[in-house]
Amino acid sequence: MTRKLTLLGATGSIGRSARDVIKHNGEAFSVAAVVGGSDAQALAEAARETGAGFAALADPAGGPALREALAGTNIPCGAGESAVLEAVDRETDLVLAAIAGTAGLRPTCAAIRRGRAIALANKECLVSAGAAFMRLAAAEAVPVIPVDSEHNALAQALGAGDPADVDRMTLTASGGPFRDWDRARIAAAGPQQALRHPNWSMGAKVTIDSATLMNKGLELIEAHHLFDIEAARLDVVVHPQSIVHGLVTWRDGGVTAGLGAPDMRIPIAHALALPGSRLDTAAPRLDLAGIGSLTFEKPDLDRFPCLALAITALEEGGAHPTILNAANEIAVAAFIAGRLDFYGIAVSVEKVCARMLSSRLAAPVHVEDALALDAQARRLMQELIGAPVTAGV
Amino acid sequence: MTRKLTLLGATGSIGRSARDVIKHNGEAFSVAAVVGGSDAQALAEAARETGAGFAALADPAGGPALREALAGTNIPCGAGESAVLEAVDRETDLVLAAIAGTAGLRPTCAAIRRGRAIALANKECLVSAGAAFMRLAAAEAVPVIPVDSEHNALAQALGAGDPADVDRMTLTASGGPFRDWDRARIAAAGPQQALRHPNWSMGAKVTIDSATLMNKGLELIEAHHLFDIEAARLDVVVHPQSIVHGLVTWRDGGVTAGLGAPDMRIPIAHALALPGSRLDTAAPRLDLAGIGSLTFEKPDLDRFPCLALAITALEEGGAHPTILNAANEIAVAAFIAGRLDFYGIAVSVEKVCARMLSSRLAAPVHVEDALALDAQARRLMQELIGAPVTAGV
Repeated sequence: MTRKLTLLGATGSIGRSARDVIKHNGEAFSVAAVVGGSDAQALAEAARETGAGFAALADPAGGPALREALAGTNIPCGAGESAVLEAVDRETDLVLAAIAGTAGLRPTCAAIRRGRAIALANKECLVSAGAAFMRLAAAEAVPVIPVDSEHNALAQALGAGDPADVDRMTLTASGGPFRDWDRARIAAAGPQQALRHPNWSMGAKVTIDSATLMNKGLELIEAHHLFDIEAARLDVVVHPQSIVHGLVTWRDGGVTAGLGAPDMRIPIAHALALPGSRLDTAAPRLDLAGIGSLTFEKPDLDRFPCLALAITALEEGGAHPTILNAANEIAVAAFIAGRLDFYGIAVSVEKVCARMLSSRLAAPVHVEDALALDAQARRLMQELIGAPVTAGV
Repeated sequence: MTRKLTLLGATGSIGRSARDVIKHNGEAFSVAAVVGGSDAQALAEAARETGAGFAALADPAGGPALREALAGTNIPCGAGESAVLEAVDRETDLVLAAIAGTAGLRPTCAAIRRGRAIALANKECLVSAGAAFMRLAAAEAVPVIPVDSEHNALAQALGAGDPADVDRMTLTASGGPFRDWDRARIAAAGPQQALRHPNWSMGAKVTIDSATLMNKGLELIEAHHLFDIEAARLDVVVHPQSIVHGLVTWRDGGVTAGLGAPDMRIPIAHALALPGSRLDTAAPRLDLAGIGSLTFEKPDLDRFPCLALAITALEEGGAHPTILNAANEIAVAAFIAGRLDFYGIAVSVEKVCARMLSSRLAAPVHVEDALALDAQARRLMQELIGAPVTAGV
């Protein structure tokens, strides 16, 4: 039976990998709608390739370009928020939520309110509005299947038992390009160096987050909400080969883990298939003897202070993760633009968190509360960067 | 609720680890019966320690010694085959089948015929009589839960999906004490050296089998029957640290694995708990950063010909695994006794298999057929060893 999919974020890194999985499993899927950000050509290509029933561009100005790019097809299209919501409204079995950033929050929540199962590749739903998001999903009895390789691995490893018997959950981190650099050398690193991720090919923002280890901190917050597990039972271990993605330690001392070549098609295929049979993929098979050695080390919170900041935000909860995430997004953009140095990211994020949290903000109850808090943190960070920020080493 | 256990093989390595798990979970278990081989003192100690409802010694001559050792307790006891069957008859929820060797076959089958769930730590049920044994368990609708660390890991890893979606299963092998020795040095190795297993503390026979890698070959045969998976989709990878025990590769390229410190209490606790909640154990927790590195390599069938022999037996099926297993047990005893050199094990096992299989033996349909074939192979091997056997290097 053909399964209907809606791809929110069809033109990004995850969206392209998902399309590869869909192509590889020709008969298994039909695509109800594709949603993109502002690149009309790329979205039109995604729509043609998947034979989508509808194409929506988030950028309201992109309507004419999208119509032109889809000329000669019968694919209806639109642009702007209402078009995105129309895409979400299309009858479908599963929504891949792969719009990057807080821009993904409203469309994903709209899909949940329509009762759609969610394959979640957007971090911000869980980091920025985790409690509110999971409450909404629970209220609508909607399954949230993680697509992130680490959380997908944990979800698979959890199959070995009852969640009540879990002792700890461990996420692995590649360590990024600066894993074995000393602090002084890291401090002098620019965006060119930070964008060289050793294992994964991803977007610029998440690649910088991998270099600071903020990415892993955000993933801890995601794991907390996805699996309802407290901070004290969540770990990070640095594993440069990115072969073991996540581990569940059980009460009895046994451990189950999710592994695989670092190829996003694998967790995407797993998530798109649920609750049915697994799909085939063109992803490389794991060859442990060929790899030879898997190494593991403790993360260094001194050289990677962003991880420590995220752990603090996770432990404190409430408004803290929302602020941390928003401040970090602006700081990373400033780093890429050359307006902040590497350690300036952590210093400025910490400053924004401290300043906003000094006024005892309430935890966001609804997703809209989180978005308001997010906007406030971004404004504050923008102001802060207006005056040049330089971090000491 | 207290769970009733019967321990077949209460005094061996697995039995002692199981008693440690039981002690650690005081209220969770009561022990219906304990069964030992010939050591009356050790069995009496197991019976006292667990407050067993009955104690049976397989050795019929051990009755008086056992009665004396249990004097002052109210624990009824007996010796010989009828006492063992009486132990199996006692009302129980789960039978730990941990009698070593083919001696474990009849009592385990008797427990299955009584409809008892089996936690299986006896290799021979699956290697020597696999098809017959699994047919019997299926006919009685009895669950067979593997206790061996590798198969237990695979059983846990299988929790991540539907068995129909499994692409491959991989068992890890420590490689034994001779993993990095060259062939000439291995050829000259005696029992003292072969008995030094790097990771696991086990009985002598299985430790020699680990040195020859026959153990891993027998485990492939076990996996074939336990998980109904053909030889072509079963792999061995050498992993000297014995931390990853088994891996399941799924159709989509994802892999799930069972890991843990090399401590038998972990898989035993998992198996004894099923289908209920997991147990606590005193086993060490896995610390990947502390271990630092996990290595993997292909097994060398030239230096370890026993693994090749077992793979051939698995591929051919029928009577071959039964003969291989019986011949190997006698050959290993001869090696320990100094009557065969190390490579003499493989050479003589291969000879016995070739000689017996030249007469186109039928596959054992019933467990008793397997036992008859087993006895025949043992006799032939004994004859062969009567004339001194020396293997070329």
